Amino acid sequence: MKTYINDIKENDQVESHFLVKEKFSGITKTGNTYLKLKLVDRSGEMEGRIWTLVENLAESFEKDDFVHVMGKAVSFQEHLQLNITHIERVKEEEILFSDFFPMTEKDIDEMFQTLLEVSRQIRNPHLSRLLQLFWEDESFTKLFKMAPASKWLHHNYLGGLLEHTLSLAQLALINASHYNGLNLDLLLTASILHDLGKVDELSYHRSFDYSDEGRLLGHIVLGIERVEDKIRQLHDFPKDLSTLLKHFLLSHHGQYMWGSPKRPMTLEAVMLHFLDDMDAKINGIQQFIKRQVPEGSRWSAYHRTFEQYFYVPGFLDQMETPDKIEKNELEEE
Amino acid sequence: MKTYINDIKENDQVESHFLVKEKFSGITKTGNTYLKLKLVDRSGEMEGRIWTLVENLAESFEKDDFVHVMGKAVSFQEHLQLNITHIERVKEEEILFSDFFPMTEKDIDEMFQTLLEVSRQIRNPHLSRLLQLFWEDESFTKLFKMAPASKWLHHNYLGGLLEHTLSLAQLALINASHYNGLNLDLLLTASILHDLGKVDELSYHRSFDYSDEGRLLGHIVLGIERVEDKIRQLHDFPKDLSTLLKHFLLSHHGQYMWGSPKRPMTLEAVMLHFLDDMDAKINGIQQFIKRQVPEGSRWSAYHRTFEQYFYVPGFLDQMETPDKIEKNELEEE
Amino acid sequence: MKTYINDIKENDQVESHFLVKEKFSGITKTGNTYLKLKLVDRSGEMEGRIWTLVENLAESFEKDDFVHVMGKAVSFQEHLQLNITHIERVKEEEILFSDFFPMTEKDIDEMFQTLLEVSRQIRNPHLSRLLQLFWEDESFTKLFKMAPASKWLHHNYLGGLLEHTLSLAQLALINASHYNGLNLDLLLTASILHDLGKVDELSYHRSFDYSDEGRLLGHIVLGIERVEDKIRQLHDFPKDLSTLLKHFLLSHHGQYMWGSPKRPMTLEAVMLHFLDDMDAKINGIQQFIKRQVPEGSRWSAYHRTFEQYFYVPGFLDQMETPDKIEKNELEEE
Amino acid sequence: MKTYINDIKENDQVESHFLVKEKFSGITKTGNTYLKLKLVDRSGEMEGRIWTLVENLAESFEKDDFVHVMGKAVSFQEHLQLNITHIERVKEEEILFSDFFPMTEKDIDEMFQTLLEVSRQIRNPHLSRLLQLFWEDESFTKLFKMAPASKWLHHNYLGGLLEHTLSLAQLALINASHYNGLNLDLLLTASILHDLGKVDELSYHRSFDYSDEGRLLGHIVLGIERVEDKIRQLHDFPKDLSTLLKHFLLSHHGQYMWGSPKRPMTLEAVMLHFLDDMDAKINGIQQFIKRQVPEGSRWSAYHRTFEQYFYVPGFLDQMETPDKIEKNELEEE
Amino acid sequence: MKTYINDIKENDQVESHFLVKEKFSGITKTGNTYLKLKLVDRSGEMEGRIWTLVENLAESFEKDDFVHVMGKAVSFQEHLQLNITHIERVKEEEILFSDFFPMTEKDIDEMFQTLLEVSRQIRNPHLSRLLQLFWEDESFTKLFKMAPASKWLHHNYLGGLLEHTLSLAQLALINASHYNGLNLDLLLTASILHDLGKVDELSYHRSFDYSDEGRLLGHIVLGIERVEDKIRQLHDFPKDLSTLLKHFLLSHHGQYMWGSPKRPMTLEAVMLHFLDDMDAKINGIQQFIKRQVPEGSRWSAYHRTFEQYFYVPGFLDQMETPDKIEKNELEEE
Amino acid sequence: MKTYINDIKENDQVESHFLVKEKFSGITKTGNTYLKLKLVDRSGEMEGRIWTLVENLAESFEKDDFVHVMGKAVSFQEHLQLNITHIERVKEEEILFSDFFPMTEKDIDEMFQTLLEVSRQIRNPHLSRLLQLFWEDESFTKLFKMAPASKWLHHNYLGGLLEHTLSLAQLALINASHYNGLNLDLLLTASILHDLGKVDELSYHRSFDYSDEGRLLGHIVLGIERVEDKIRQLHDFPKDLSTLLKHFLLSHHGQYMWGSPKRPMTLEAVMLHFLDDMDAKINGIQQFIKRQVPEGSRWSAYHRTFEQYFYVPGFLDQMETPDKIEKNELEEE
Repeated sequence: MKTYINDIKENDQVESHFLVKEKFSGITKTGNTYLKLKLVDRSGEMEGRIWTLVENLAESFEKDDFVHVMGKAVSFQEHLQLNITHIERVKEEEILFSDFFPMTEKDIDEMFQTLLEVSRQIRNPHLSRLLQLFWEDESFTKLFKMAPASKWLHHNYLGGLLEHTLSLAQLALINASHYNGLNLDLLLTASILHDLGKVDELSYHRSFDYSDEGRLLGHIVLGIERVEDKIRQLHDFPKDLSTLLKHFLLSHHGQYMWGSPKRPMTLEAVMLHFLDDMDAKINGIQQFIKRQVPEGSRWSAYHRTFEQYFYVPGFLDQMETPDKIEKNELEEE
Repeated sequence: MKTYINDIKENDQVESHFLVKEKFSGITKTGNTYLKLKLVDRSGEMEGRIWTLVENLAESFEKDDFVHVMGKAVSFQEHLQLNITHIERVKEEEILFSDFFPMTEKDIDEMFQTLLEVSRQIRNPHLSRLLQLFWEDESFTKLFKMAPASKWLHHNYLGGLLEHTLSLAQLALINASHYNGLNLDLLLTASILHDLGKVDELSYHRSFDYSDEGRLLGHIVLGIERVEDKIRQLHDFPKDLSTLLKHFLLSHHGQYMWGSPKRPMTLEAVMLHFLDDMDAKINGIQQFIKRQVPEGSRWSAYHRTFEQYFYVPGFLDQMETPDKIEKNELEEE
Repeated sequence: MKTYINDIKENDQVESHFLVKEKFSGITKTGNTYLKLKLVDRSGEMEGRIWTLVENLAESFEKDDFVHVMGKAVSFQEHLQLNITHIERVKEEEILFSDFFPMTEKDIDEMFQTLLEVSRQIRNPHLSRLLQLFWEDESFTKLFKMAPASKWLHHNYLGGLLEHTLSLAQLALINASHYNGLNLDLLLTASILHDLGKVDELSYHRSFDYSDEGRLLGHIVLGIERVEDKIRQLHDFPKDLSTLLKHFLLSHHGQYMWGSPKRPMTLEAVMLHFLDDMDAKINGIQQFIKRQVPEGSRWSAYHRTFEQYFYVPGFLDQMETPDKIEKNELEEE
Repeated sequence: MKTYINDIKENDQVESHFLVKEKFSGITKTGNTYLKLKLVDRSGEMEGRIWTLVENLAESFEKDDFVHVMGKAVSFQEHLQLNITHIERVKEEEILFSDFFPMTEKDIDEMFQTLLEVSRQIRNPHLSRLLQLFWEDESFTKLFKMAPASKWLHHNYLGGLLEHTLSLAQLALINASHYNGLNLDLLLTASILHDLGKVDELSYHRSFDYSDEGRLLGHIVLGIERVEDKIRQLHDFPKDLSTLLKHFLLSHHGQYMWGSPKRPMTLEAVMLHFLDDMDAKINGIQQFIKRQVPEGSRWSAYHRTFEQYFYVPGFLDQMETPDKIEKNELEEE
Repeated sequence: MKTYINDIKENDQVESHFLVKEKFSGITKTGNTYLKLKLVDRSGEMEGRIWTLVENLAESFEKDDFVHVMGKAVSFQEHLQLNITHIERVKEEEILFSDFFPMTEKDIDEMFQTLLEVSRQIRNPHLSRLLQLFWEDESFTKLFKMAPASKWLHHNYLGGLLEHTLSLAQLALINASHYNGLNLDLLLTASILHDLGKVDELSYHRSFDYSDEGRLLGHIVLGIERVEDKIRQLHDFPKDLSTLLKHFLLSHHGQYMWGSPKRPMTLEAVMLHFLDDMDAKINGIQQFIKRQVPEGSRWSAYHRTFEQYFYVPGFLDQMETPDKIEKNELEEE
Repeated sequence: MKTYINDIKENDQVESHFLVKEKFSGITKTGNTYLKLKLVDRSGEMEGRIWTLVENLAESFEKDDFVHVMGKAVSFQEHLQLNITHIERVKEEEILFSDFFPMTEKDIDEMFQTLLEVSRQIRNPHLSRLLQLFWEDESFTKLFKMAPASKWLHHNYLGGLLEHTLSLAQLALINASHYNGLNLDLLLTASILHDLGKVDELSYHRSFDYSDEGRLLGHIVLGIERVEDKIRQLHDFPKDLSTLLKHFLLSHHGQYMWGSPKRPMTLEAVMLHFLDDMDAKINGIQQFIKRQVPEGSRWSAYHRTFEQYFYVPGFLDQMETPDKIEKNELEEE
């Protein structure tokens, strides 16, 4: 069973899986070689030291490997470090990703099945076939199920892209139906594909960061390229429809300032922008509130990106119907 | 039956109701007094002249009266004008408002009933009683049913405020249910009350314009005053709840730049802002497209406030399923 | 007599009043209970520990109490802490507020009397009576005399709101008289009332912070509510005048970006905005210069909100009339 | 006596002074030469034609001359034009500038004397001597008394610069005295000199426009050059004081966006900016209201630069003390 | 030979080529059919009417055809119109494009050859082959030689894209050589390809306007698609290089606000942005000055997009070396 | 030979030149006086202590002196400090400036000679003589060769102003020649003079900072004053040319927001702005990349002013011609 780093206390005997983020060798004052590691899991990081059998153990793993470790936690210069007696590499299949990275609380496969169902509601055969091409592309779906939706602001955990995409598709369904004259097929397809470039924009296998092409091109253009790639396989996909669909990806940030080189120009693209922004904000604030509201406070910490505090009016939920208030009473007055 | 101004042609004999927007008296070259009127209805405006019986007729109506008019359309300096032989004041009850002002295409009473039903879903007794006070206030509901939601941008017709309010309440219902942990009672109440200050901000009985207090205070503060007024009648309305509810009204524009002196600080207030903005934009664009897309064009005229064109991809609706594309086909591949 | 925290040195025997900002109990390594306090006064904060008679003493005061304390300052891990031998609660009346919070250097009662005199110059009976209602409301005047005008930027000390209000009223008097055609009664009343919502926006009885309603509604709306509340008691206060007066409160920040949902629309409101902004800036810079100009420097530290340095050209004051410069001399040339 | 252009009616015999803004010669269908002039005065412009004695008259004046004209007003293609029978050049001394250009309503020499008195309050000998140099420079004072303060926004009439300067100096006096610790000498000198570059920035002898150096350099830099020029004549003017004084000119617009390459860095410079901005706005709005409030309206036309309407609450002045409101009454309640 | 529309005068007999922009049929008062055309060429537009042989002539051409026309110019309601006696369609090859559309003053084929030479300096084989693919694609080069670089602001004439591209490539050459360490191959390739999406963004065969995909996607994304398309044909084009090259296209507007979803992140991309912006502005201002500086004036008209006037200091060129200024003279002083 | 501070290790015997940035005297626990110094050189700073012969040594140097020091490096509270046994003042001529301040890597005198050559290309005698006046002013050229071009962003080292000026003049030459119709004399002169006010804006003899007049007036106005000063010596310098030249200095930042109170109004001024901005950015990014790209990374650290990362695609330079790609091959296809 996993022992989390931030649960380890002085003198604990530890046996668990960790990820090796750094690996350096040093020389002790007495001239012996030792290894100095940075071990991480989802809860934090700590230093590890290997003092004995250094040569043997050193070869059995590399930086960025997951490892099985045995050792004892000791205090050195006011910090805990792990004196390691045994260490060996383990395969990715043997570990639980959620032990190492923040992960969606929802079931990934279940969400994916629901998304497939939603996408089956699309009746336009071109759009329907386009989506199907994506679903049949296993190298894509594997990434799509795992990718976070962002590094910081919202759905910033494994599975976050899928969770956000499903949420947006469902929002698209219910909001489009509320109005007359919106093309549901188009909106639904665009909702599902709007952020797909994030599978390439972010790297998320050992830590969350932007990939080179993520920083240089961004998920909007990377997404358009993935869409274009599939459309090319569909030899009769209408040019106008292709242009329109790409317009959704391009404009979904809504404003130049927010990184969209075009603003939404159709009713459906306008709606996609609002729902996407709303879903991202709601999730982002919910994540923030979960971690950043001090016990007993109605106010969150200051959110640096949004430049404000958030208010958590818990009193509302505890508000009971006072005896003396009866709806009828009022009517009788 | 109403004869609309923009249907009148040279030499027509006209008998219909109009609204008198201006009334001046002049002197002809031969020294006689005549009256020069500006007559309007929902379709446009035209000049009217009274040459005979001037003194008698002049006393029978004033500027801003609805009048019954008989006369003949003649051409003068390339413009049509109406030589009036009979004119007399009619009461508001005798005319159809929709003949004179743009009006919602939906049924006002039906919308209002639906809104009442929606508001019955609120279970918090304080919020429920508060709404009830509004619904029981006939002088309010009369205005509320008639007011437009804005002068230009969206729902800019009689009944527009009610239409927008109902739409937003329905959006609140379906979107709040999509997420966990949002307080539906609060969001629903806020949706219903968010723009109520518009009954005072705009004047809309003879033309659409801003009232003095509308320009000086704006619908946000006017709305808060109406809410405060009702809350005072509910002697045990909790202070915290009152503050929170007013925060929704205050922050629903979302940004300082858009006239909100506070930004939304709760999940529900964030959602209200997005849905309100979305509903206003969707309606505004739909109204604009209806009038401003040239026959046969996929592009609207330039929208000066939004500083862009809108695209109307009608081809989508006519897109038939090509014979050779069968959804099953692809699945079988 | 008060001993200030930042004057306490190692081994001092201390007896003085402090405010208890935090109160926790802990267990020593030997298993005894102790209390750990955060004590503050206007000069700073320090840790206090109670090792003996813990149970008895613990009950005699709570967090946020003012206390009378006896103890000895000892050094622990490079920080001073107070080992407390006696502690007991004292009433607010027994302490000097100015020992605990920054306070205006002016005499509060004197300023208030001057403000009353200024307000007597108002000749419009409606406005005059309105102000009188405020002056007669003791629960209001008590807050009004004590409140700071802001948490950070200007007049950020007890009595600051009164000081700023009086200053603005005096500025209004002299500047309005400089022009023809400005309504002095209106400008004076608005000056006096413009920030009154700050008595509710900030909490300032144990520390300076924003209250819940301060954050959610802000002093502009809170002020309008207090004004509306008084106007309601004056049964014949003209509607137009009420709207206009509220417009001053609403617009006094001058721009949307600065939190005013309406921009000033009358000459007097334009002037109020400029004078208010000027008075706040002058005071804010004076406060900043007082603390943030290094000895011997002509330049202040960097002001983060204003994003600039300030220059203190002391040389000017020391500039004596050089002998060789005589005004007449020049004239004779 | 002056006959103003906008008072001229068809068939009037006209004899008056005008300014010739354009002068072209044409050929009639019958082959004769005629002159076509644009005549202007402060009230408007009209076309003038010379049909006879063309050669003689043509030589007696040029474009941009003031002329004495005799002729008859006739209607041609719905416009009035003046058939001129006599025209001859007059010298500038013979005309009244205020007949041709908008002019301050105040007495220029009186204002100038008051400004001299104000400037005598300056006790710092360097600053005092500097101002004296300006007052003794007749080529400067001639321009300074005549220049407008801007082309459009405020004090946009002959004498406007002097009027604005005097107003600002008086505001500086009363506002600086309100605070402790401001250097009045410096503020007063800066107030008087802050806009002096406008004598060069604008050209205002035949019409109001920007000069070449006005457009290329602006009044801020032009003013600094004029100040530097005088300071050079005062051989012992302190360098620090010179730098500081120029900083006032440079920073008086307050923000980069408003054309100041430096923001105000001393208390006095901050105050100068606010008072200058306030005086310009108050004058600008007063000018606008005078011309742009329709009869009977409380609202001005839309001000394109300020992007808003202004409110003129005339009701306030007519508000009489209602009998039933007695200040004592309230106290007795 | 071409007769230009703005040279046609009343009663002229006209025989020339025109473009038919509108074609309507009407009924005369006497019941006969006539055709009403809008004819345009590069100099302007005029109305044409066909009164006789209407049926025959009507079939011989359509809207948007180039036509050969014979007729007589007559005046009708103060406008000239052409009474057409003969009209017939001509093929595109028979007309001169430069008679109908603004066109570069430079030789298109010569510019293209120079560009080919410049592109031969690229030594990186991947980049070199990529460009060669474009040059070998005749359907592309045909568009590339003809397209304007924008609708309004700069190089807004046929051949403008090529002219701007060549200019930028030459600027890239000389500026990159000025610095150490810049990759010339990359910068040169990016310069040549940076705007290539404009061949699709604009439509320019009958008038200048944006195409559907131009408005919905913009030239940045359209350009990336064309580049991606060619890269796909080069099977071993390095991924990193492809990403980097696309980054240039994506970021060349420099700022989010100017439509680039990424800002330049390499030295070469930063340089490309500056040179592109400079070349566009220089050309745009030169075009503007050519048309919008009144005879004898040093100042252009007001440029609405740049919101300023431009200064044309012709005096500089006429400035002769004054006799008394000798460079040596000064040295001898 | 210089021993650099950041090369000093515990127990080193040190003998080298340093700059004394701070000098305080203290009292040891045993009652003896000691001196505490802050010593700096270009590599960093360290504390120095003088324990013996304090009175003698104390008098031999002051704060801001360069000194010759002998002593031993010891460790105290985890920091190195230098126990000084000998210290004595040295003259500026004896030290190497580049040991103490960052300095251009280019040869200052060589750059200056090149700039003189460039300036000899100017044929307009007025402009040529003006530059010559500057070159003959040794007190100016001494500053001009030494000054940095900014404190932070670009060319932030001694000689940086000269380096930037030369670079810009060369860019001006090659870019102006690329276009027709630009006045090279004017552009060249303006390039050379555009930043000359920086010799006064910054102080750079003991550390880099802004001077008082630098902060209060800025290099734009300071530069204009220096130019005006020289022009005054040239009695026949044309007024128009002087105005135009100053316009270049005033407008070279391009936008109000960037500190230019006028935007560029001539083609040459527009070009100067772009080239100046480009040269500053290229140098700034090159400096940043040199220090802020981690070993083995393609990405720089985050640049706080530019708010972005920079990409260093080293792979490009190592990209070898793959065997299978031969340029000829392709051409033969």
